Amino acid sequence: MKTIDKLQIVNKSGKFICVGLDTDPKKIPHHLSSSKNPVVEFNRQIIEATKDLAAAYKLNLAFYESVGIKGLENLEETLSFIPDDVITIADGKRGDIGNTSKMYAQSIFEHFKFDSATLNPYMGRDSLDPFLDYMDKLNFILVLTSNPGSSDFQKQRLHSGNYLYQEVLQKIGEWNKAKNCGIVFGATNLSELKDNIQNIGDLPLLIPGVGAQGGNLLDTATTLFANDKNFFLINVSRGIIQKSFGEDFADAARNELIALNNTISGIISL
Amino acid sequence: MKTIDKLQIVNKSGKFICVGLDTDPKKIPHHLSSSKNPVVEFNRQIIEATKDLAAAYKLNLAFYESVGIKGLENLEETLSFIPDDVITIADGKRGDIGNTSKMYAQSIFEHFKFDSATLNPYMGRDSLDPFLDYMDKLNFILVLTSNPGSSDFQKQRLHSGNYLYQEVLQKIGEWNKAKNCGIVFGATNLSELKDNIQNIGDLPLLIPGVGAQGGNLLDTATTLFANDKNFFLINVSRGIIQKSFGEDFADAARNELIALNNTISGIISL
Repeated sequence: MKTIDKLQIVNKSGKFICVGLDTDPKKIPHHLSSSKNPVVEFNRQIIEATKDLAAAYKLNLAFYESVGIKGLENLEETLSFIPDDVITIADGKRGDIGNTSKMYAQSIFEHFKFDSATLNPYMGRDSLDPFLDYMDKLNFILVLTSNPGSSDFQKQRLHSGNYLYQEVLQKIGEWNKAKNCGIVFGATNLSELKDNIQNIGDLPLLIPGVGAQGGNLLDTATTLFANDKNFFLINVSRGIIQKSFGEDFADAARNELIALNNTISGIISL
Repeated sequence: MKTIDKLQIVNKSGKFICVGLDTDPKKIPHHLSSSKNPVVEFNRQIIEATKDLAAAYKLNLAFYESVGIKGLENLEETLSFIPDDVITIADGKRGDIGNTSKMYAQSIFEHFKFDSATLNPYMGRDSLDPFLDYMDKLNFILVLTSNPGSSDFQKQRLHSGNYLYQEVLQKIGEWNKAKNCGIVFGATNLSELKDNIQNIGDLPLLIPGVGAQGGNLLDTATTLFANDKNFFLINVSRGIIQKSFGEDFADAARNELIALNNTISGIISL
């Protein structure tokens, strides 16, 4: 199934939260340290406790690569726990010259079989094309990120009048011939989201920055629904997977996800 | 030893060529296909034949990641063949929010022990800081890349008058407090290199795009030396490692590297 169709199905069933599996080996509950593979056991229990409620899982590639080969083994094993009807996102923010981006796309979409990837647009269209060539996948391209450094370049005003991130947004709209593009727009930039929402068109959104980074779920989701954007994922990583560091971490993650889903269904029912 | 000191030593000994180990499993000479590990055997022979003449080896992470775990094993084994006095560059163009960039930096500098990395500046300063915190390493940040897509955003003119890539260059100069930054500037953009060379200051350059992508070694190196830039690496990947697909591939790589080094010493002696 095309990832975009999968997204439509999860969104229509009221699921909008993407669980970020930014699993930091140093922040795993103590009682798991004696298990054969604490990272995998942690992810397994989190997925088991949340898979009927999550729209997607975003695996932050850095957290797996940080320990080399072992990390990629953990990544593969973690992916095996995720049911087919939940979207998987490889969050690596890749982007390189054509023959290199082709290799990254091969790694993410063919080797690891992710449904979706995050991409960095700085190197322009031909750096993204090898990903866009996978018609059935979904490519979330950075527009305006959630971190303070989004001001350094993304919010530079261009000679044409647009800010850089607006130019990127416009170009993605033009490049989205196969309807397999989406955008990354940080929840910490809510006023920019409001100002630009009419230019997003039918591009699905991946929204990081809720929770630890300061973005607000209620305000973000309210803004989206109020503007007929019903096609999005709001990522929460630490807010879910680090809700408890005790033996109840998986239950705590589930309860937090239920609370987040309730916040969203509360907005929908208004 | 600090990578920047290592660079000074290799450059002073007349070595400016970085050999790009973009090893494509599909383009390895046929006679190696029966060896236990063709990619590693190919890299081993290339390194053996070129290590006394190369300033650096750039390992394009995508080419290794494309086959998953096996690829990281190949990466580790390849690194073990490279002598300490030759610079190693992890070419991954990474860049993410702080806690994530920290994990990438840990992977590249601590786990794999590379001397140097390439970084993408789109997400701004805090996305680069975890790399810049490694004082002894060298961080080549993308300014103007060698691919056609460098026109899409990097060459957009800002309201302030600068092009985006010029703004990035200026910011890198300001952020380079620990003298552990360098820049990536594509050889295909020679006129921009000439126009901006006075603003590069003492930032070392990593220059891709010579050969298969259309950049010219003689013109690029002449421009640099003529402007007292003696602190740089010019990367050649396919032009060296794919010089021959026959049994003589390693000799052919060595001969090509000798020819490239001669081109450069010819300019220096003028």
